[in-house]
Amino acid sequence: MKSVIRFAALAAFALLLPSVSFSQDLIVEKKTFEMPSYTTVGGQTIKNVKIGWQSAGTLNADRSNAILITHFFSGTSHAFGKYKADEKAAGYWDAIIGPGKAIDTNKYYVISSDTLVNLSPNAPVVTTGPASINPDTGKPYGMSFPLVTMRDFVNVQKALIESLGIKKLKAVAGASMGGLQVYEWAAGYPEMVEKIIPVIAAAEPGAYLTGWLNVWAAPIMIDPKWNGGDYYGKEAPNDGLAAALKIVTLHANQWQWAEKAFGLAPAEDGKSPASAMNAKFKIEAVLDAAGKARAAASDANHFLYLVKANQTYAADISKIKAPTLMIYAPSDLVFTAEIVEQGAKKIAANGTPVQTVKLEGPNGHLLGVVAVSQAKDQIAAFLEK
Amino acid sequence: MKSVIRFAALAAFALLLPSVSFSQDLIVEKKTFEMPSYTTVGGQTIKNVKIGWQSAGTLNADRSNAILITHFFSGTSHAFGKYKADEKAAGYWDAIIGPGKAIDTNKYYVISSDTLVNLSPNAPVVTTGPASINPDTGKPYGMSFPLVTMRDFVNVQKALIESLGIKKLKAVAGASMGGLQVYEWAAGYPEMVEKIIPVIAAAEPGAYLTGWLNVWAAPIMIDPKWNGGDYYGKEAPNDGLAAALKIVTLHANQWQWAEKAFGLAPAEDGKSPASAMNAKFKIEAVLDAAGKARAAASDANHFLYLVKANQTYAADISKIKAPTLMIYAPSDLVFTAEIVEQGAKKIAANGTPVQTVKLEGPNGHLLGVVAVSQAKDQIAAFLEK
Repeated sequence: MKSVIRFAALAAFALLLPSVSFSQDLIVEKKTFEMPSYTTVGGQTIKNVKIGWQSAGTLNADRSNAILITHFFSGTSHAFGKYKADEKAAGYWDAIIGPGKAIDTNKYYVISSDTLVNLSPNAPVVTTGPASINPDTGKPYGMSFPLVTMRDFVNVQKALIESLGIKKLKAVAGASMGGLQVYEWAAGYPEMVEKIIPVIAAAEPGAYLTGWLNVWAAPIMIDPKWNGGDYYGKEAPNDGLAAALKIVTLHANQWQWAEKAFGLAPAEDGKSPASAMNAKFKIEAVLDAAGKARAAASDANHFLYLVKANQTYAADISKIKAPTLMIYAPSDLVFTAEIVEQGAKKIAANGTPVQTVKLEGPNGHLLGVVAVSQAKDQIAAFLEK
Repeated sequence: MKSVIRFAALAAFALLLPSVSFSQDLIVEKKTFEMPSYTTVGGQTIKNVKIGWQSAGTLNADRSNAILITHFFSGTSHAFGKYKADEKAAGYWDAIIGPGKAIDTNKYYVISSDTLVNLSPNAPVVTTGPASINPDTGKPYGMSFPLVTMRDFVNVQKALIESLGIKKLKAVAGASMGGLQVYEWAAGYPEMVEKIIPVIAAAEPGAYLTGWLNVWAAPIMIDPKWNGGDYYGKEAPNDGLAAALKIVTLHANQWQWAEKAFGLAPAEDGKSPASAMNAKFKIEAVLDAAGKARAAASDANHFLYLVKANQTYAADISKIKAPTLMIYAPSDLVFTAEIVEQGAKKIAANGTPVQTVKLEGPNGHLLGVVAVSQAKDQIAAFLEK
């Protein structure tokens, strides 16, 4: 059943994306990193913390060739390769990570981890969050799970990195919320990060995105099945979660995509949307299906914790010393170009080298995931420098 | 009680707007236009149709000096003047309509009407929609109210205009959804419209906005109190409606506004949003309050009917012959500049004169309401030509 849901989610999401060809070279394994306890930046201790991760390439003798990939809001550690040769799609950044690719696993040891409170707590994700069992009560935490911040995501990744004997990362790279983790790494642990590649993410996103994150979350709490976060073992608030994911899906795209993919076609041939309240346009039906499929693979409380972690992100970017390759999309409506460029200027103002690359295409924010290979030459050269 | 709610709605909305000074000259009267029955473009007959309207200026002897103002999604006929000298705020376009102003009521007879299915069916609005009593059953229509389109809004306005003996309008002007009515007027009744002034509205808005309108509406139907539209005489689905209006409020503004007005200040002094799930940023608290206040003055089913009317808008703009003054905001996220400009080109391609004016400022879409006076000289000159 889970694989059916997973497939439905991918299929629905695939409708929203241009076709991407994937490498079939790299087989990766999902691994689990465990900490007996972790104390948050806010001072609360969580027992038995687990996150999933994967790697490719070989760590060199002095452990100086590791690159960490941090994931986006609805992403997972699965940034590259396949778990099985017949897996339908490879990891989301497989176009730039692998043998001979921009982030070359023949040269670098590439690590990618799940975050805390990952949106999709079911396999193939390993995470710790509201849906996890609280060892003290034997029941899911629900909304009693401690608040976690972007820095907490990074701190658990740091423990993973250190467990591998790595003292300094060659680079940290990530898209969207992954980019916020990149900034947190470089601002929080400047001595551990040689270079950074934040993609479709502003260093200081600001108030408007804070408002949008609130709007994303709102439908969940209107769904009576949310029940203050207490729904484990009962019906989940999937109507609210689907509406939330529908907003995210639309916000992460752009008008050119909508026009080209659907235009004003009706959802059902010959049934005019003007004929009845429930007669829809195709774009509405696709958004509804995407929201529903994504909700079935996601957890509503985890969504709320992710929203909070994004809203409270506050890296002190004046501390960033790592040379920065900032990749963004002028058509992005989530992290808009002006805000991204403001952050680039602010980092550069301290003398930190900042290089920018623009992604072009009709997909807005999503370009950082589906079209990142446009920047592959710049990424390869930046890492080689 | 109603006036308290109304005041709360205006007060909350006022927080979102730059300060605007209003004329105190013009006192207007809310009037009611009635039709014993109206048959929609879709072929359904509605009995006892009423809409509210107001006017200023004097209709000249040959009835050739009338200008019609059409309103936006959450607007009303109250575009200019005050109902009473001590009314808190004048009509939304009072800066450009009145004696000696850009749309000069010393020269023109200016009419503005409520639409069908107006968002706020309670006074001081007169409208016919799902919240109205169906004369055949003695009960509110709810979702049995016939679907209505932008052309239906225009057809009822046309009946009003004709009831005044007016055969041709000097001009039709309106913002946002009001602009869509403007295009419908010029495309549907080209012989009745001398000039048009569509403001912050694209002639062919396209698929992406269709998707956003779906997203706006979604929270209403998740609220169990919506109950398939059957809530009259019971508790209304105001949580869902507030969430819907929160999206509209944010979408109609822009990051510059959010940054300047709130930044990352907490909702409560000294209470960090990172300290608890319900500790909010100021921008969240303001959006919540605005959504709640606006919901108290609005009707959820009417919101859904308005969304449908906007989605199914499909004026054949190749029929537009009226010289066009198109006013828009490059920072608009609802009707984006590229889409507006495409529409302008398409209308001009038929030889119709099109002049464009850009509104500047931090308020995105809202500039068409709060900053329209930036275009006052062009409006005055365009009407005089």
